Amino acid sequence: SSPSALAVAAVLPAGGCGERMGVATPKQFCRVLGRPLISHTLQALERVCWIKDIVVVVTGENMETMKSIIQKYQHKGISLVEAGATRHRSIFNGLKALAGDQAYCRLSRPEVVIIHDAVRPFFEEDDLLKVVRAAREHGAAGATRPLVSTVISPSTEGCLDHSLERARYRASEMPQAFLFDVIYEAYQQCSGYDLEFGTECLQLALKYCHANAKLVEGSPDLWKVTYKRDLYAAESIIKERISQKICIVMDMKEEKEHAGYLLETVLKNELNHVKVTSVVPCHDGSNIQHIILEQCYSFVCMNVMTTDFQNTQKLLGMLEESNLSVLYPVVVVSVHFLDFELGPLSQKMESLMWIRKFAVEVKKRNILLCGLIINYSQDEQKLQESLRQGAVIIAALIKERNSALLGQLLVA
Amino acid sequence: SSPSALAVAAVLPAGGCGERMGVATPKQFCRVLGRPLISHTLQALERVCWIKDIVVVVTGENMETMKSIIQKYQHKGISLVEAGATRHRSIFNGLKALAGDQAYCRLSRPEVVIIHDAVRPFFEEDDLLKVVRAAREHGAAGATRPLVSTVISPSTEGCLDHSLERARYRASEMPQAFLFDVIYEAYQQCSGYDLEFGTECLQLALKYCHANAKLVEGSPDLWKVTYKRDLYAAESIIKERISQKICIVMDMKEEKEHAGYLLETVLKNELNHVKVTSVVPCHDGSNIQHIILEQCYSFVCMNVMTTDFQNTQKLLGMLEESNLSVLYPVVVVSVHFLDFELGPLSQKMESLMWIRKFAVEVKKRNILLCGLIINYSQDEQKLQESLRQGAVIIAALIKERNSALLGQLLVA
Ligand SMILES: [Mg+2]
Ligand SMILES: [Mg+2]
Repeated sequence: SSPSALAVAAVLPAGGCGERMGVATPKQFCRVLGRPLISHTLQALERVCWIKDIVVVVTGENMETMKSIIQKYQHKGISLVEAGATRHRSIFNGLKALAGDQAYCRLSRPEVVIIHDAVRPFFEEDDLLKVVRAAREHGAAGATRPLVSTVISPSTEGCLDHSLERARYRASEMPQAFLFDVIYEAYQQCSGYDLEFGTECLQLALKYCHANAKLVEGSPDLWKVTYKRDLYAAESIIKERISQKICIVMDMKEEKEHAGYLLETVLKNELNHVKVTSVVPCHDGSNIQHIILEQCYSFVCMNVMTTDFQNTQKLLGMLEESNLSVLYPVVVVSVHFLDFELGPLSQKMESLMWIRKFAVEVKKRNILLCGLIINYSQDEQKLQESLRQGAVIIAALIKERNSALLGQLLVA
Repeated sequence: SSPSALAVAAVLPAGGCGERMGVATPKQFCRVLGRPLISHTLQALERVCWIKDIVVVVTGENMETMKSIIQKYQHKGISLVEAGATRHRSIFNGLKALAGDQAYCRLSRPEVVIIHDAVRPFFEEDDLLKVVRAAREHGAAGATRPLVSTVISPSTEGCLDHSLERARYRASEMPQAFLFDVIYEAYQQCSGYDLEFGTECLQLALKYCHANAKLVEGSPDLWKVTYKRDLYAAESIIKERISQKICIVMDMKEEKEHAGYLLETVLKNELNHVKVTSVVPCHDGSNIQHIILEQCYSFVCMNVMTTDFQNTQKLLGMLEESNLSVLYPVVVVSVHFLDFELGPLSQKMESLMWIRKFAVEVKKRNILLCGLIINYSQDEQKLQESLRQGAVIIAALIKERNSALLGQLLVA
């Protein structure tokens, strides 16, 4: 049966203090592309339409921080519950809120509950589907991955006692899913020792409810952000993901949009793995709005043989009205094709200085505006070289998404 | 005793095929900041003056690639040995080359051998010292780390059989070290099954030579580049490391170097964790050469109230003569302090266009040159804002080290 027929909720323990990161901020609140990691995880959960409720478990001291994150990034359907002293106690608190036996609580008891980690933002809907389906059949299920290192058991003297045969063990990852009654019963029955020192929910379901926890092969993307290096990796992955689509907004005034299509061709050649589309804005801008709705975060705006910015300005207006840049910085490169041999470049640059001021304005809405002048030379070879260099610059601006370069006027 | 009194060699198995990366290139040959990962690891081993010989074990098909890496990046004292079909067979081949019992071999038998991974470039000398000292005492030693995930044992039906108590186990990492006679004997004695399916050298030393392998607490930096995300993390870490020092080359013509010291102050404020030093070039340039020798990869070159580039050109000449940019791209920001109110900015930009051509030239030597104009305004507030913005741009250029931006003229 389809998962939408089930009532599914998710519990997200986020009470950890991040001592392994070597930074003061708990890792779930560390910023990745300017936004706390936990917001990226919530966004990934929210995409999944068949998850009814999401319970985030945070420490009392982080409760206000969490509330402001939910408000700022417009997360919906989140309930906050206070964390316990250990991971198991926190999860138990989250489950209690879902049990429907507390009079004041607006949440209803789900059939299946997903338990995930605030610091694992990179799952797909399919990863959740797999554990939910298996939990429905077996009572409990969890994603696992092959071990990366050999696991060894130390002797009391700190020497090697024995090493485990790597192929016979797995790393237990998240997400996990449970029939709600199974895992809630397990937590109600389980010992103080387990609540204090245990680390594995599947083990509780097995020990206290004899649920045969099904192990599901997880994707490599389920990794947990643990160390500072993982934050670097997360930021690079997210930057790569939101740079997978580039929209070229053609210049309406240019009848055949020749320059625009030349640049499109070169960008497609230079950026093998990126989907480059082009659009001539229609009168009411609805085709641009459609692209914004499809979550394209990278725009190249053509202004052929002109140092004005009508085309760019129109796009910026639409981006400002949309909610697109709430979640990620949007890059807009205002491209100006100018023949360098017709008058000195410096004059053209001067008249493009408006970009500096405009960029400061739209930065407030998380939009990163840069200018790029491409030499529209009559010499075919010069033109091709300039186009190629322009494509390299555009690719770098989109990939790095660095606000330090906003308002700059680059030359190809 | 000091480790230099010992004869220490290192074996670096690099025969893996990188199937976990999801890329065609074996991970040890994937480029990090333009240079194959294994070259970063070799560089880290070479820093350690008490390691006499380094044996790299590569597959026959990668032998030529490896030779060209050694030549291009000027690695010294490396011997190449052909890999076997498994990791243990490869390490055994490496040890055979060090055993000194092959007539043709120029290597001499070490007292202690370090076994490390080509895909772990982030160790410190101290990490090696710890395992070498412990190996001398116990016969064998290896670095370990706490487990990141709970380890579980699956049943034959793919369900949870039991989970291991996390605190009682450790992840076995690299480096490891052994008395050469112990580990060589272990490999000579060990079964075909162990050579084929084993993963743990410490286990071989224990099983075949009863060496009580000492477990040493490893630093978090010992992690292994396994997935594509680890390449992203590695690149960010290396970029951060080589951006820890910035040298401001002052303008000799400016008597009191006022502008230079203003920028130095602002850079120090903006870049908390970076060591910013300044130097007024002496006549023979020996003080700059000293800084180059100390491996500073980031330069800010002051040109006050002038659109020429005497100061920058001199620095570039010294950098080109040095070997500095063989290992990492060197960033040079040519800063020009100009009062925007004295004549139009466009004329100044025009006269600074030489940077574009010059940047293409020095790029061949892995030097990334950018220009930056800072408004040297008489208005104190405007000047401070311009300095602050300049510092942000400099920080971004140095941190990203992106060759797409070379030759650009940025404005603060
Ligand atoms: Mg939902
Ligand atoms: Mg050496």
